[in-house]
Amino acid sequence: MSAGPGTPTRHPVGAESLVAAVEDRLTAFFRTRAPIVEPLGPVFVDAAAALEDFVIRGGKRTRPSFAWTGWLGAGRSADDPDADAVLTACSALELVQACALIHDDIIDSSRTRRGFPTVHVDYEQRHRGQRWAGDSDHYGISVAILIGDLALAWADDMARDAGLPADAAARFAPVWAAMRTEVLGGQLLDIHGESAGDETVEAALRINRYKTAAYTIERPLHLGAALAGASPELIAAYREFGTDIGIAFQLRDDLLGVFGDPAVTGKPSGDDLREGKRTVLIAEALQRADAAAPATANLIRSSLGTDVTPERVAELRTALTELGAVDAVEKRIGSLTDRALTALDASTATPDATRQLRAMALAATARSY
Amino acid sequence: MSAGPGTPTRHPVGAESLVAAVEDRLTAFFRTRAPIVEPLGPVFVDAAAALEDFVIRGGKRTRPSFAWTGWLGAGRSADDPDADAVLTACSALELVQACALIHDDIIDSSRTRRGFPTVHVDYEQRHRGQRWAGDSDHYGISVAILIGDLALAWADDMARDAGLPADAAARFAPVWAAMRTEVLGGQLLDIHGESAGDETVEAALRINRYKTAAYTIERPLHLGAALAGASPELIAAYREFGTDIGIAFQLRDDLLGVFGDPAVTGKPSGDDLREGKRTVLIAEALQRADAAAPATANLIRSSLGTDVTPERVAELRTALTELGAVDAVEKRIGSLTDRALTALDASTATPDATRQLRAMALAATARSY
Repeated sequence: MSAGPGTPTRHPVGAESLVAAVEDRLTAFFRTRAPIVEPLGPVFVDAAAALEDFVIRGGKRTRPSFAWTGWLGAGRSADDPDADAVLTACSALELVQACALIHDDIIDSSRTRRGFPTVHVDYEQRHRGQRWAGDSDHYGISVAILIGDLALAWADDMARDAGLPADAAARFAPVWAAMRTEVLGGQLLDIHGESAGDETVEAALRINRYKTAAYTIERPLHLGAALAGASPELIAAYREFGTDIGIAFQLRDDLLGVFGDPAVTGKPSGDDLREGKRTVLIAEALQRADAAAPATANLIRSSLGTDVTPERVAELRTALTELGAVDAVEKRIGSLTDRALTALDASTATPDATRQLRAMALAATARSY
Repeated sequence: MSAGPGTPTRHPVGAESLVAAVEDRLTAFFRTRAPIVEPLGPVFVDAAAALEDFVIRGGKRTRPSFAWTGWLGAGRSADDPDADAVLTACSALELVQACALIHDDIIDSSRTRRGFPTVHVDYEQRHRGQRWAGDSDHYGISVAILIGDLALAWADDMARDAGLPADAAARFAPVWAAMRTEVLGGQLLDIHGESAGDETVEAALRINRYKTAAYTIERPLHLGAALAGASPELIAAYREFGTDIGIAFQLRDDLLGVFGDPAVTGKPSGDDLREGKRTVLIAEALQRADAAAPATANLIRSSLGTDVTPERVAELRTALTELGAVDAVEKRIGSLTDRALTALDASTATPDATRQLRAMALAATARSY
C-alpha cells in the first residue's frame, strides 16, 4: 500500500482561511465529545486527545476543500444561511480520513507520519516505556484499531450533528455512504492486489479509482453538490472531473515516488520501489518488459519491495523510462487532465469555482511541483 | 480481554420470531449494498459476503431484542406505523457488534468464534493457501481491520436508511453516538487495564459498565425508548435497570468463566483463568488475599494468563471460594438484580414489556443456566 488511502504525498491546497476554518470546526467538535468521554476516566480522555492531536496536526484538508468548493460552485456562497452547517459537514471528512490513515499505518507497518510516530507506534512506545505486561507491538496495534474506529464513528456524529437542513442531510447521506464503502473497498483491493501479485494496469487503475480518485476528489465534490441541491448535470460533470483528476493526481504521485526530488516529495528517493508499490507505472513497465525485455522484467520484479541501493534505483529509473512506461503514464495524465478540464468548462459551475477547481487540478497533476 | 465487547458467553434470548425478523432486516440491508460494492469487483464482493456470513451466522440478537422491547415497553406495538423502521434501526446494532467482534478478535488473538475461524484467521488461511507474497498473519489482520470498519460504516448506513420519522431519528442519534463511543472506550479501558495490571475492583467494574452493561442493555433499551419518544422517567428507569442488569450479567459470566460447566458455557473449564481476564471476581480475590493470604495472592497472580492445568484450575477455584470472592460477587449480582427489578417495577413500562424484561434479566443473571 501507499502512504495512505487517497493520500499521495502532495496535496492540492485549500485556501489558508478555509484550512483554518476546517480546523476550528474539528476543534469545536472534539469539545462536544467531552461529556461522553470524560465519565470513562483519564485513560479514555487521553486516547481521545491522541485522536484530536492526530486530526489537528494533519494536512491540507484536501477533502473538505473539494467539498466546500463543490458547494460554492453550485451557486452557494459563504453568506448562505446553511454555510455554517455545510462547512461542518465537509470538515467531518477529516475524521473519516483519520480512521483511514490510522488503520492504514497499521496495515503498512508505517512508523512515522508527518514527522510524528504513527498512533500504533505511539502506544507501542508508551507500553514499552511503562514496562507493562504483554507484547508492546500488539498493544499499540490494538489501541490504534480502537482509536481509528472512534474516528470513524465520530465522523458520522459530526456530519449528523452539523445542523444541516433535512433535505440537504437526505441528499448528503447516500453520497457519504458510497464514499466510505468505496475507500474501504479500494484499500482492500490494494492489499489484495499487492499480496496476490496482480500486475495488470487495469488492477492498478481500479485501485486508484476507488482508493484515491473517488475518495479524495470525486465524492467530496459530489458531497458538496448534493448539499447544495445541484442539478444532475453539474453532479455528473463534477464526478467526471473528480474521477479523472483524482486518477491523474495519483499517477503524478506514482511518478514522483520513483523520480521525485526527496527535497520536494519529503520521501527518500525511489521510496515507492522500496515499498514495492504496485502502481500503474510499474504495471505499464512490466507489461512492456514481459513482451520485449524479459531480463528487465526480472530486474524490476526482483527489486520491488526490497531495500534497493541508490545505484539500483538509478538503474530502475532508466529501465522504466526506456520501456516507455514513463511516457505512457505522462500521456494518461495529460489526457485525463484534458478530459477533466473539458468537463469542468462545459459545466454550470460558477466561474469562481471553475477557476478554483482548475487551479487545484493543475496543482495536483502538474509535472513539476 | 474477554470473548468480545459486551459478549459474555451466554445471552438473554430474544423471542425466536424477533431473532428471525432481525436477520431478515440484516439480509435485506446487505442486498442494498450490492450496487455500491459490485463496481469494485469480485475481491470486494467476496469481502462483503464474508461480513454478511459473519453477521447472519451470529448470535441471539441481544441488543436488537432489548431495543425492540424498550420500544414496545414505551407503549408502542408491532402494528404501529413506525414499527418497520424501528425494527430496522434496532437491527443495525448487530453491525456495530460485528465491528466490535471482528476487531476484538484481532486484539484478543482469537482463532475461532462460534465454531468458525475468526475473520482475520479466515483471511490469513486464504493467504497461506494461495501461497501469496508477504506475511499471512499480517494480511489476515489487515483485511479484518477493513472488514470491521466496513461493518461500522454500514451500521450507520442501515440506521440512517431505516426510514425513521425525523423526530424519532433526531432522538435516536445522540444515544447511538453515546453507545458507540462508550463501547470503544470500554474496550480501550479493558486493554489498558490488562496491560497496566490494574487489579482494583473499581477498574473491573468500570470496564463492565461501559464494555458490557451500557453497550449490551442500557443503551439498547435507551435507544428503543428514544425511538418511542418515551418520558424522561421511563428512560431513567430503563437506564438504571439496564446498567445494573448489564453489570450483573457480566459478573455471572465471570463466575461461569471459572466455575462453569464446559458443556453449558461452550468454553473449556477455567478458560478465563487461562486468558488472564481481570474480572471483578479476580479483583475481589486479590484484594482479600493481599490483606490476609499473600501466598494465595502469589498463586493467583502467577497463574493468571498461563496455561493452567486442570489441577491448578481446581486449586484456584478453591482459593477464590475460600477467600470469599465468590460470595462477594454473588452478593453483588443479587443486589444489582434486586435494584434493577425494583426500578423496572416502579417504571411506567407496559406490563408485557415489564414481564419480558424481567425474564430477560433473570435469564441473564441466574445462578444456573
